[in-house]
Amino acid sequence: MSTRMGAWLLGLALLAASAAAQDNQKQSQDEGQPATTNVSGARYPLIHSDLRITFRVKAPDARKVQVQGGDGLGKGPFSMVRGEDGLWAVTTPPAVPGFHYYWLLIDGVAVNDPASETFFGYGKPTSGVEVPEKGVDFYDAKNVPHGEVRARWYHSSVTGQWRRAYVYTPPDYDANPQTRYPVLYLQHGAGEDERGWSTQGRMNFILDNLIAAGKAKPMLVVMDRGYAARAGAAGAPAARSGPFAGTSAFEDVVLKDLIPMIDSTYRTLSDREHRAMAGLSMGGGQTLQITLRHLDTFSHIGVFSGALFGKFDPKTAYGGAFSDPTAFNEKVRLLWLGAGSGEERFVKSARALHEALERDGIKSVFVESQGTAHEWQTWRRALYDFAPRLFRDKK
Amino acid sequence: MSTRMGAWLLGLALLAASAAAQDNQKQSQDEGQPATTNVSGARYPLIHSDLRITFRVKAPDARKVQVQGGDGLGKGPFSMVRGEDGLWAVTTPPAVPGFHYYWLLIDGVAVNDPASETFFGYGKPTSGVEVPEKGVDFYDAKNVPHGEVRARWYHSSVTGQWRRAYVYTPPDYDANPQTRYPVLYLQHGAGEDERGWSTQGRMNFILDNLIAAGKAKPMLVVMDRGYAARAGAAGAPAARSGPFAGTSAFEDVVLKDLIPMIDSTYRTLSDREHRAMAGLSMGGGQTLQITLRHLDTFSHIGVFSGALFGKFDPKTAYGGAFSDPTAFNEKVRLLWLGAGSGEERFVKSARALHEALERDGIKSVFVESQGTAHEWQTWRRALYDFAPRLFRDKK
Repeated sequence: MSTRMGAWLLGLALLAASAAAQDNQKQSQDEGQPATTNVSGARYPLIHSDLRITFRVKAPDARKVQVQGGDGLGKGPFSMVRGEDGLWAVTTPPAVPGFHYYWLLIDGVAVNDPASETFFGYGKPTSGVEVPEKGVDFYDAKNVPHGEVRARWYHSSVTGQWRRAYVYTPPDYDANPQTRYPVLYLQHGAGEDERGWSTQGRMNFILDNLIAAGKAKPMLVVMDRGYAARAGAAGAPAARSGPFAGTSAFEDVVLKDLIPMIDSTYRTLSDREHRAMAGLSMGGGQTLQITLRHLDTFSHIGVFSGALFGKFDPKTAYGGAFSDPTAFNEKVRLLWLGAGSGEERFVKSARALHEALERDGIKSVFVESQGTAHEWQTWRRALYDFAPRLFRDKK
Repeated sequence: MSTRMGAWLLGLALLAASAAAQDNQKQSQDEGQPATTNVSGARYPLIHSDLRITFRVKAPDARKVQVQGGDGLGKGPFSMVRGEDGLWAVTTPPAVPGFHYYWLLIDGVAVNDPASETFFGYGKPTSGVEVPEKGVDFYDAKNVPHGEVRARWYHSSVTGQWRRAYVYTPPDYDANPQTRYPVLYLQHGAGEDERGWSTQGRMNFILDNLIAAGKAKPMLVVMDRGYAARAGAAGAPAARSGPFAGTSAFEDVVLKDLIPMIDSTYRTLSDREHRAMAGLSMGGGQTLQITLRHLDTFSHIGVFSGALFGKFDPKTAYGGAFSDPTAFNEKVRLLWLGAGSGEERFVKSARALHEALERDGIKSVFVESQGTAHEWQTWRRALYDFAPRLFRDKK
């Protein structure tokens, strides 16, 4: 029996293995390494040592196949060339290190690459390719104690629906049942969801490594879905909510549902001194809107590549939160602003806000990520700089 | 500033919303409901009240578009018809309730549907559609206490790599820091991975509901990735392992790495009486192979749609585990066999094994799932029947 079952299992395995797996042997003399974001056994996308990337897909009957993706991949779309056996391939110019969303255009239809994992971005599952950064490992799994990322379902009184939050608990959380921890609320960008920070962002490895090195305090990190529609809202059928249905409902979810649930479910330090919020892009805008209106609830604020494009009047912006610099500096322990040098509009506006606040006597931190665009490498670096500044003892 | 930022955020939101979102208004008079597996805002796939499903995709330049999927969708591929604006659509015959993998064939290339979430199956992210079963809610999120599904990274001495296991902890796990729990090891099928049981399978809701009803004992459920290649194995580059690299290495991972890690990390009852293993399809084969060779480690066994197609000799099979019926019945608290009536080969072989064991005086349970095939509805039902039988007090 075991032999026959073995043969059957092997058959299943061969079914499961994609055609790409067979390329491993055929082309093992090629230079380059399969991206870590490839599905198991897939050789392409292949990252060359100079960070050029070769993409390949089998599409014998297609007339036109292209690759297109995030800024760091270069200015696409890149036209693929049909080779023997209907295999289309292209090698792009050297990419910026980090994580890039991408997709294939097959006869004009944007579809995912069967050879890559998908990541929720652009409002749907989207292919991604991880390009290593030489000598940089702060977001890799290392031989240090690891925390957990927990999927936590809770009912929202605001939306009338069940929601899922992801909660990072630090490595010693279960081992120290008497210890209470500060909490960082950490939000994704538009078109992404609660999974973004722990998959694309690798926030768990970043925190594990910082905590192991003694550079960041052990903390909980709560990542929620940044979309919400009020229960019974017109045009929002009960089972669904659009990708962006307004920040005001989400603000209420955070204040009325999420924070109380987290504080009653986990061993938190529940005063404002031990509660931070940060977010990227849309999540940065949500962070400013929510924290500045609730400084009795939050003490540390992080805006990663936030959308700060409007005219700024420190006397009136955000309901006058900046109108009394002395009071603001006393209350807000950290206001972190930053963006990548490759996302000009975002970095200019973040710097401008930082400088305007400075002129007004309001303390903030401004950090520019060199060479990266409106993409996850900017935000991994932002978290790596931001997290160590949280919850330090008051001087 | 807030107005401008609002406008910018709204712009992002519109970008993020797929074209399908706009169908909501245009076609709201249509009968049917968007599948819960659709991405937010997507109207199609649309489930009609008789369980026919309408699929739709925009592909103006394609010459041929089809839908194909799991058995319960019906015998495809279903050819889509090109309508105005390059929208292709088809309505399939009534589907079997449950979760079905599916994909589009666009000019012959199998790709995912941009309108659906993806699920890891067939060795890669694959579109899925959830078809409701009338009056059945045992796998839905209900107003009961919810457990967590935790992503846990650990280092394997067998493979030399970091692995990720998913660990379900029952609702009261954190609140009862003195309580220890039994453990079920629960495996996915070929081409799937450690995410399968909690996404496609909804095992967390099944357990939450059973525990809330007092029908199952609170337990931990550990779901690992059923693939492993030994460290340094020829042809297995360090960073990669094929989708099925042999059960022997996986057996060693379970025995030497996973179980010790779980027992030292979580508050488990670590004797054999409180350890079960079950799996579906390939995972069922792995379960038999691992548990029957290690009856000092496991006391409860579940084989869901397992691959049991060979000739069976109870005297010699599985190293003679069945050769002494009295000893076996004394030691093994539960041997559960089952499959769906719609997967003829699997259900026949499971019944045949059950009957062969019975003739030999070996106790086992056989359960047939009516109307379902080699798909997740069969395995949700299997877990719902299996879990309540675990870890009951000895009579």
